[in-house]
Amino acid sequence: MATKEEIINSLETVLVPATRRSIVATNLVREVNVTDGGVHAVLASTGLGQDSQEWIAAKAREAVGRLAGVTDINIEYRAAAAKDLNTVGHVLAVMSGKGGVGKSLVSGLLAVALRRQGHEVGILDADITGPSIPRMFGVSAPVAGNEEAILPVPTKSGIEVMSINLLLPSEDDAVVWRGPLIARTITQFWEEVLWGKLDYLIVDLPPGTADAPLTVMQQLPISGIVIVFTPQELTAMVVRKAVKMAQQMEKPIIGVIENMSYLYVPEIDKKIELFGKSRAEEMARSVGAPLLAQLPIDPNLARLCDEGNIERYDGEVITRLAESISQLMEERHA
Amino acid sequence: MATKEEIINSLETVLVPATRRSIVATNLVREVNVTDGGVHAVLASTGLGQDSQEWIAAKAREAVGRLAGVTDINIEYRAAAAKDLNTVGHVLAVMSGKGGVGKSLVSGLLAVALRRQGHEVGILDADITGPSIPRMFGVSAPVAGNEEAILPVPTKSGIEVMSINLLLPSEDDAVVWRGPLIARTITQFWEEVLWGKLDYLIVDLPPGTADAPLTVMQQLPISGIVIVFTPQELTAMVVRKAVKMAQQMEKPIIGVIENMSYLYVPEIDKKIELFGKSRAEEMARSVGAPLLAQLPIDPNLARLCDEGNIERYDGEVITRLAESISQLMEERHA
Repeated sequence: MATKEEIINSLETVLVPATRRSIVATNLVREVNVTDGGVHAVLASTGLGQDSQEWIAAKAREAVGRLAGVTDINIEYRAAAAKDLNTVGHVLAVMSGKGGVGKSLVSGLLAVALRRQGHEVGILDADITGPSIPRMFGVSAPVAGNEEAILPVPTKSGIEVMSINLLLPSEDDAVVWRGPLIARTITQFWEEVLWGKLDYLIVDLPPGTADAPLTVMQQLPISGIVIVFTPQELTAMVVRKAVKMAQQMEKPIIGVIENMSYLYVPEIDKKIELFGKSRAEEMARSVGAPLLAQLPIDPNLARLCDEGNIERYDGEVITRLAESISQLMEERHA
Repeated sequence: MATKEEIINSLETVLVPATRRSIVATNLVREVNVTDGGVHAVLASTGLGQDSQEWIAAKAREAVGRLAGVTDINIEYRAAAAKDLNTVGHVLAVMSGKGGVGKSLVSGLLAVALRRQGHEVGILDADITGPSIPRMFGVSAPVAGNEEAILPVPTKSGIEVMSINLLLPSEDDAVVWRGPLIARTITQFWEEVLWGKLDYLIVDLPPGTADAPLTVMQQLPISGIVIVFTPQELTAMVVRKAVKMAQQMEKPIIGVIENMSYLYVPEIDKKIELFGKSRAEEMARSVGAPLLAQLPIDPNLARLCDEGNIERYDGEVITRLAESISQLMEERHA
């Protein structure tokens, strides 16, 4: 007879339809009991339509059936709330206060960087009125799910994404909602999306210090905040508001990232500081957090984002970002 | 005995303390009655502390006393709501949906342009959580006023500004408010600020399609909306949401402006399209509104904004902008 571990290993090969992840990685496997009489497995039905439940049961039977000595597996589905299934290592919120400084870009690059290191990564796009993440990664609707929960949409490299734009009939549609409804949507993205097992969930916050960032800080177990800014003093002023908000709510700022630091013009081999002199060191000092990166303006990166191919970006900054972040998170845990 | 017109003309010389405008331009002069017995004037006390009321009364007496045949003027103060005093020709909302595309910059440039044409211009900074206007114009607190109303702060060239940053103890302070409170603040900026007589009030909207833009569209008598975008397709997608919102609320879009169209590098006499190929014509066509301007990335303009000297900018775009807008508004009135 196979052991429980062997059975769970074999269930690792059973993918959830419309995703790139197994029923084990999504935490859908709740119990596995091995007795002389056979194998009994309890799966959560969270986010699974009737078709998907039957498909998974059939594939699970096939997978387990390949093990020596297993003749039968009994599969039972039970309802469970997504939030009871989700196990997320670190929730990192990317914040800037000011719009258009590249917060979504940094969220995307962070996710790509951590994913390349082999981590399980998700992105919760909390920018309900100006969501950019799906376009950047080239992912689109439809979203699978049932009345209990919905499933994130995987990117090409297997990053799990949830964004309001995946739920709208057209990505151009406006979400003309008052704050409380927006706040509720973000809460739902946390509680009613089957994230499963993640090492990192990156939360792309909207600009400002109003409802949306407030909700995220109050309701999500934030491990750390990454602050994004640009060299313009005007931006720095608004970003300091976001920093004050994080401090008031006692959330740790784990690092700062300067975006649009400079433009490199190869024809004259010159860096042009388009938005003024870098304030990176100054900002890091005033926030009391390390400077994680200075990102140049890179037309190639802008193009990749427009094409939905941010995952193809190979700037060296990606490697450095991932190293800094995972080192930081280890230190915080040590 | 002087005529009523002569008396009002002389009151034009009486400035409201802490502003650059007269009691006539601010609509504080409510009634002027000339009789054989003397002159009786009714002024609104709106926004005037006791000191200011006395100062104005003394200066009015001086001014009128210089007229031939006027021996006495009786000045009476009456309470009045600011919204009953304000007479605004056109309310133009600058909108983008997406943050950081330069909406505040366009609001500022529009105001500067219209002011240079000799119009009376105000800016209502509706971006409560990320206000940029005061910094751009180098204006700061304190704001004068009384329990009825507050006075906008004038810029160097006499543009009237109201922004949450003028009311905060420090400009770095975060406004950590839920939507309804933010909406109420914007309504107050419209109803409880003594704008007086304005030809144009430019409303700098926050990004997104949530509470703040919703409130402005519902509660302010918008004459037209100017849409700002940048060449990135990602931006265009979010901006189209704002366009849809404006259309749903049946507000006329009077024009579109492309910001960050290109960077001119003098060393190689080349325009670099940093954020991809211009989509200006395409956007104008899809919105069904004229393209008012294509603004380059101009490090000089960025520096002027950081220094609070946007009014010193002399790019040719300023002239073109003012001409297009005032022509458009005349056509709408004809």
